[in-house]
Order: sequence, then C-alpha cells, then structure tokens
Amino acid sequence: MQVKATLLCLVTALATNVALAYDWQALPDKAPEPADNPTTPEKVELGRMLYFDPRMSETGTVSCNSCHNLMLGGDDNRDFSMGVHGKTGGRSAPTVWNSAFASTQFWDGRAASLEDQAKGPVVNPVEMGMKDLDAALDRVRAIPGYKPYFVRAFGDKDPITVDNAARAVAAFERTMITPNSPYDRFVKGDKKALSASQQRGMQAFNEVGCTSCHSGAAFNGPTLPIGQGFFMKFPTFADNDYVARYDLLKDKGRFAVTAKDADKYLFKVPTLRNIALTAPYFHNGSVATLDEAVRVMAKVQLNKDLSDAQVKDIVAFLNGLTGEFPELAMPRLPATSGWTFNKR
Amino acid sequence: MQVKATLLCLVTALATNVALAYDWQALPDKAPEPADNPTTPEKVELGRMLYFDPRMSETGTVSCNSCHNLMLGGDDNRDFSMGVHGKTGGRSAPTVWNSAFASTQFWDGRAASLEDQAKGPVVNPVEMGMKDLDAALDRVRAIPGYKPYFVRAFGDKDPITVDNAARAVAAFERTMITPNSPYDRFVKGDKKALSASQQRGMQAFNEVGCTSCHSGAAFNGPTLPIGQGFFMKFPTFADNDYVARYDLLKDKGRFAVTAKDADKYLFKVPTLRNIALTAPYFHNGSVATLDEAVRVMAKVQLNKDLSDAQVKDIVAFLNGLTGEFPELAMPRLPATSGWTFNKR
Repeated sequence: MQVKATLLCLVTALATNVALAYDWQALPDKAPEPADNPTTPEKVELGRMLYFDPRMSETGTVSCNSCHNLMLGGDDNRDFSMGVHGKTGGRSAPTVWNSAFASTQFWDGRAASLEDQAKGPVVNPVEMGMKDLDAALDRVRAIPGYKPYFVRAFGDKDPITVDNAARAVAAFERTMITPNSPYDRFVKGDKKALSASQQRGMQAFNEVGCTSCHSGAAFNGPTLPIGQGFFMKFPTFADNDYVARYDLLKDKGRFAVTAKDADKYLFKVPTLRNIALTAPYFHNGSVATLDEAVRVMAKVQLNKDLSDAQVKDIVAFLNGLTGEFPELAMPRLPATSGWTFNKR
Repeated sequence: MQVKATLLCLVTALATNVALAYDWQALPDKAPEPADNPTTPEKVELGRMLYFDPRMSETGTVSCNSCHNLMLGGDDNRDFSMGVHGKTGGRSAPTVWNSAFASTQFWDGRAASLEDQAKGPVVNPVEMGMKDLDAALDRVRAIPGYKPYFVRAFGDKDPITVDNAARAVAAFERTMITPNSPYDRFVKGDKKALSASQQRGMQAFNEVGCTSCHSGAAFNGPTLPIGQGFFMKFPTFADNDYVARYDLLKDKGRFAVTAKDADKYLFKVPTLRNIALTAPYFHNGSVATLDEAVRVMAKVQLNKDLSDAQVKDIVAFLNGLTGEFPELAMPRLPATSGWTFNKR
C-alpha cells in the first residue's frame, strides 16, 4: 500500500537534476476510472445529487460540498473543517477537484479509492456524524424520489446500497477535473500562456526540487496503482523556526493509521492544481498565504531559503495551475417526505 | 405596517362563502420588483454568488442557501435552523421560493422587503453570526474577485456597499419563483392538470375556509403594498389537544417585534406554494407531515375537524402547488486570497 518514501525521494531527486529534460505533463481531459465502476452519465447525475445533499448528515446540514465546496476551490478555506454541531477535526479539507488523479485519499491515505473515501466523512462524528452507514442509507431510502435515480444508474435489483451510493459519488467526482490551465496550454505549445515570471517560476519550481515530490500531471507524484500511496515526511527538516510556528510536529500523519514508526509524519503528497484557490495550506491549514507556504515548503522539505524573487516567480507559476472549471448545474434534490430532523 | 387581522379575516371569510366565484389565481411568470431596485441580469448574477457564498458567516460555513436551500424546497427540512457553531434559533426557516410575492419577510414580518431581510441573518448570532454588517462587508472586500461583479451591477463609484449587496441578493431572489404548477395549469384552462381528488381538495380548501387567509396567487393573502404585512393569530382556537402537543403557545410571534398586546401570536400567513417539499410545518416546525398540518390548521384556525377523505383530498390539492423550478447554474465564487477562518 505504500512506496518507501525515502527511496523514491532519492530516485526522483536524481531525475530532477536533469532540469531541461523534466517531463512536464498536461492534465488529461478525462480522469482514469476503475474497471468495476465505469463512469456513466446516470451515476454522475445521482452522484451529483448525493454530493450536494445535506440530509445524509445527522443534523441535515452538512453535505460533501460543505467542506469540499465545488463553487470554490473544492475545499472550505478553513484550517479545520466544521461538521455537525459546529464540531471541528484536526485537519484541513483537501480539494475535491482532480481528486480522481490521486492513488489514495485523505491526507494519510487511509482510503484506497474515491469509492472508499466517500464513506468516511458520513460516519465521522466531527463531519457528517451518522451513527453508521446503514443509518445514512436509511435516510436515502426515506427520500422516495431517489429510487428512480438508483435504478437508472445500477439496475432495478436492490440498487439502493451503501456501495452504490459511494460508486455514484465517486463517478461524479471523476468528472470534477480542471484541465486547460495556463500551465497546460503552455505545455501543449502555447508559449504565451505563461508570463515571463511564471516561466521563471516553472524553472525554479523544478530546479529548487519541488518536482521531486510534486511531479506528474496533477503535481502529486508519480502515477501509482490505485491504493498505493505516495507519501512524504513532513516536515523532513525540523531544525527551523517554521516547525514550531506552524505546529508541524503535532499531527503524526499516517502513523495514526498504521501505528508504524516508519509512518510518523508521513503525509500524502497533495495535488497543487488550483492551489491558489485553496488557502489555508498544509494538512493543518496553518499557513494563510501561498507565498508563505512556498517559503515553508522549501525550508522544511528541501532545507532551502528562497529569495523573494524566487518566491514571487514560483507563486506566479502556481497561479498558472488554476484550471478551467466545468459548468455545473445545480441539482434538484427529491423531497423529504414525512420525516424531519426534529429532536422533539 | 399591519392590516387589522380580525377585520380582514371577517371580510375574506364572507367572500369565501361564494365558493364558486372564488378568484383562483395563477402565479405570474415574473415577480414584482421595486422601483428603486429593478431586477437586472448583472444584479441577479452577483446576488446568486452572494447567496451561495458561506464566507460572509463568522465560521465561513453558513450561506443563505444553508437554511434556504434552493436545491430543495427553499428551506432546510429542520424544525429550527442551524447556524454557525451548530447554534439553533426558535423558528423554522421559511422557503425562499416565491418570497418575492410576500409583502413582508420573516415569520413576524420584521423586514419590509427582501432587501431588508437579506441583512438580518448575516448578523444574527445563531445564523451567520457576523459582528455587524460592516464586518460582513469587509469579508466581501477581502475577496478581490467580487469587485468587477459589483461594478457591473451598480456602477463604478464605490459599488461595494451593504445596501448594494442586499439589493443584489433580493434581485436574485425575485427570479426564484415557481410558476406553472399543476394548479396553475388547471386555473389557466388545462382541466386535466389536477386529478379528481385534487379538484375535490381544491373545492374543500375553499369551502372549509383555508382561502380566508391563504388567498391570492401565492396562497399567502391579499396583495398588499410592500411593508404592509398580512398577519393572523395562530392559534386562533386554543381549546384543543394540538396546542399543547405542538407547543403552539410558546412563541408569541409578532409581539416579540412590537411588544403590543394586539400582536400576540400573530404570524405572517406563509405561502403554500411547494408546501409538499417544505416539511416540517409551522413557525416552530413541530409537525412533520402535511396530513397532520392540514388537520391542525383546520382545528386551531377554523375550529373544524376534517374527515380523512377531506384531508386526503386537500393534501392532494396542496401537492398540486409544487411548481416548476428554474434551472440554476452553480456559481463560481471568486477565490479567498491571503486570509482564512483560522482562529489561531
């Protein structure tokens, strides 16, 4: 499930020394899809409805979109996301945009696929707060208008299941991708798509060593089989002021999932696509601006102090990773019928 | 600001005795708009963005749409709506659909117009929880991408103001109307648009006396000048089991606004448009089903005990008030830039 981070880091670090030969990749126009859950329009339609529906949370107020807001950068611009009853967890919501290009999900990679991921927040007490997945499914069943959509997407033999709901949400998310950023157009040959500063930033991004980890079309590492995560130790260099200032030794990352010492402080390398839209930064949302995030990353991951000019250019380049967002129609959600969220 | 409820009730009650002559009205295809805030596409576009933007709430998690969900019946299917930090107030969110046809806003009519209403929840500590409207405006100003939309909607001389934001939201809301329900098509001449049961229910709705208050195109009373509310005492008849069961003497309604004895238990007559979608019912959301709501209303407002057949027909008729919802594109919201909701 996990590539040896240190080894892979060395290998890719060697590769980045051949700066000019770096393999800059454009984002595909279509996300990969698993053989057992091909993306169909019927699943996408149902998944879009479920994604925006707050009624599968305990209070009826929290949907997937509450923390992964598709009207924004696919997150909530908060340090720690806020779930039912105003509860907060300990991590910042990652963007849902282009999550289809990640080989594991969550900051600690505890879900292998989008299908697995979709089930997590529903039963997390500080997110959607349902007792269990069956209780969430009962909510879906209690909204009669959902049934025809499940039938269309999955056939008519008991289609309303937790797995099918997760499949539909995952299929929808695979359509939430943002190709054709200025960077993509540049890579495809439009040499005016990036400004001079952005092009300098692109070169610096590689030469400084950012591409050691933030490689590939989604800037989240090499393409790996689904379920095999690409993790890095964060912070790698802890002997600097940033570590205390931004509380970077509090959350032990993947260690919380595996309890293995080797996994201490390992986090999934996140995509940098649309990074200009998703402040605050890092798993703990401790840094508010992209400038500061770039400085901190250079220091704690590469032990480098960037010049102001380098930071400016790299930030300009990162702004060029903001893609084109698909037009999204607001779903009409089927009516609640004969039940409410009343506690009385 | 307020029609004498008792007098008007008598006048309309007399009118309803001429059952056949009752003036059934279809919903117009366009909502009325005030002379000082004509509805323009530019305002509607900006208003739609502000309506869905959670960043003008203290926590960055609550937008207008959180409680007045346009993907649903324009409300949240909760008894008491839930605002920042999971706080709840004491009333159920009224639907935003067709609110343009109401002459006052809020259950107690404390806002004269949609423009006035839009400012309320922003600074309500149990809704969006901002300190004051200036603080909310600071949030808007801190999102640079909003400025061009304000300029297009209101000109370029200091367009980002609280009043302009409210005007934009109100203009958007005036486009959120649902004409062409089965009832509307029936009234316009399509005699097959309502079933036999629905037609019986329509007649019963009038004969029983519901139209005494729920009159007009929006089923919320006579057309009055903006700011002049149409209120009724609820409960009118308190000597029945429902009053205790559904806690109907707790909230004194408009009295809380005016402190006048005459306003005790006065509530705005709400629209019945799309009522099948907006459970739970009443200002306190105490009733989960439309059947029960119809029974309770007949008893506590008209002192009548309906038969099961009457309830069934009236509920069928009320289901015929569900209109056609406009297709709504998801807005893209401009990025948060250099600030977050971090408390640290």
